[in-house]
Amino acid sequence: MKIIDLAAIRASLELDAAISAVRAGFIGYSAGRAQLGAVGHLVFPEVDGDCHIKSAAISGEDVFAVKIANGFPRNAALGLKASDGMMMVFDTTTGAPLALLQDEGHLTDLRTAIAGGLAASLIKPENCEAIGIIGTGIQGRLQAELAARLTGVKHILIWGRDDDKASELAATLRAAGLAAEAVADIAALTRRTRLVITTTPARIPLLTRANTVPGMRIVAVGADAPGKQEVETELVAAMDLLVADDRLQCVDHGELSWPAGAGLIEMAQIAELGSLLAEPPILAPDSAALVDLTGIGVQDLAVASTVWRSFDAADRAVNR
Amino acid sequence: MKIIDLAAIRASLELDAAISAVRAGFIGYSAGRAQLGAVGHLVFPEVDGDCHIKSAAISGEDVFAVKIANGFPRNAALGLKASDGMMMVFDTTTGAPLALLQDEGHLTDLRTAIAGGLAASLIKPENCEAIGIIGTGIQGRLQAELAARLTGVKHILIWGRDDDKASELAATLRAAGLAAEAVADIAALTRRTRLVITTTPARIPLLTRANTVPGMRIVAVGADAPGKQEVETELVAAMDLLVADDRLQCVDHGELSWPAGAGLIEMAQIAELGSLLAEPPILAPDSAALVDLTGIGVQDLAVASTVWRSFDAADRAVNR
Repeated sequence: MKIIDLAAIRASLELDAAISAVRAGFIGYSAGRAQLGAVGHLVFPEVDGDCHIKSAAISGEDVFAVKIANGFPRNAALGLKASDGMMMVFDTTTGAPLALLQDEGHLTDLRTAIAGGLAASLIKPENCEAIGIIGTGIQGRLQAELAARLTGVKHILIWGRDDDKASELAATLRAAGLAAEAVADIAALTRRTRLVITTTPARIPLLTRANTVPGMRIVAVGADAPGKQEVETELVAAMDLLVADDRLQCVDHGELSWPAGAGLIEMAQIAELGSLLAEPPILAPDSAALVDLTGIGVQDLAVASTVWRSFDAADRAVNR
Repeated sequence: MKIIDLAAIRASLELDAAISAVRAGFIGYSAGRAQLGAVGHLVFPEVDGDCHIKSAAISGEDVFAVKIANGFPRNAALGLKASDGMMMVFDTTTGAPLALLQDEGHLTDLRTAIAGGLAASLIKPENCEAIGIIGTGIQGRLQAELAARLTGVKHILIWGRDDDKASELAATLRAAGLAAEAVADIAALTRRTRLVITTTPARIPLLTRANTVPGMRIVAVGADAPGKQEVETELVAAMDLLVADDRLQCVDHGELSWPAGAGLIEMAQIAELGSLLAEPPILAPDSAALVDLTGIGVQDLAVASTVWRSFDAADRAVNR
């Protein structure tokens, strides 16, 4: 079993290969070729921490993966990482452990951003000149980078609760070659672009009917647990197209749980991301659309297998 | 994160500490202090393989554990291990990954045998002169060793389908300091001892009313999945005391699933191992008893934390 640390993962990761793998993972999932193990969940209420254990396999793939992700938010006050994680890759034919990827949560961040970029490219309006990013954390940065890469739109508008952090993120993205700027409020952002990716842990909706325009195209990334909400219930309910990475999961604890819980939308009207990636929809120019991302195990499998493959290929080259 | 391989685990493992930890784990579980994550399960029907992912925490413990166990029986024909596994130990206060134990399934074998030994000591009849072992695999050997250690009974009688393997196991146990002998059939074994541990993957009962005596004390280890059965349904149903490591699990897919499925026993009459370890029952001399073991995550946590503690202590000693 190869032990691969974060530096080695970062150095070897082929982003285009990871993107292809995540796309294929979603398509395989929607085509019924994926297996997801029941999610193990342990909670540590004394320190507000928890541990999630996910596993996935796709029929015909030569590896499967298990991921352990820990979230201990009070670590930050101790100068420690608030989230940590690792993935393990196994041989599908023999069960042999192939690799431990000590990615410290980076691969989860990345697979989430890849999903956002794929979703953004799917619902990007015609003549789109900018991508709006709500939130200034690690997902704000990664979603901007991946969405720019996957849509070809290099102009990024950023809004966050903290103006300084928004300006900092803009500077970071400019250093990475994008045209990025912070904006003063959400209305200012939606006046300039209909394509917005939300990446916050908000519990009170940020995007509302009042501060958006008709025909919004929203990728909702932040709401991944009960109680979180970034987009006003009625705004979601009125969308022309609703998409979920996993319909049951999104209706249970994603952005879609709010209109579904209020009886404003039905399961039957929600499309699945993997199905649309396999067969992209043609959207009416003025139509509104929202993609809700809660994260599924096939994304973890996709990035883990991409990393594993690059190391395995390097080994074969050395041993040739 | 410390990476600890099987050789290092074997070299460092303190058996008495592991036994104490498993006992405490069962007691904690039955006292409601344990959390078990949902078991993740992936299947690979093309090669008859599967992967189980278990996780456990006990309130007040400083570490929690995740275990991945793969069973790929066709590996044997390829000269590869049919089962493999690993455990991971995390800090309960920060979620920090502390250790990867590459135990290749050994710690699972061991925690299963420890549970058997604890169960045997709980139901050992008075004046018990021998322990009967049904089955000649790795569990046959380990159960004999642990039961001898925990009951103080050093005479082992072995029966297996294959006479040669039974004789081999007897020789192995003699080399380990026990008085061990193979017997010709199960009736010959039960004429000489009422205390029997069953360790086979049988799907047709081996212990029956016909080949046993009144007042049997049975530890049933083999039946851990639907379809497996080592003890005749009516023999189990007639026991004076029934014990389960986990009642729901045993009634679902353990030895107790047969009489429960036939409506011959009720959940309310099944005691839990951890409760009895906390407060050992006084058994009438001639009463019959059966303990059904299907394996629970607190056992994995117990052995993993024992291994981790010995390494952590060694580190502290070096760094002092």
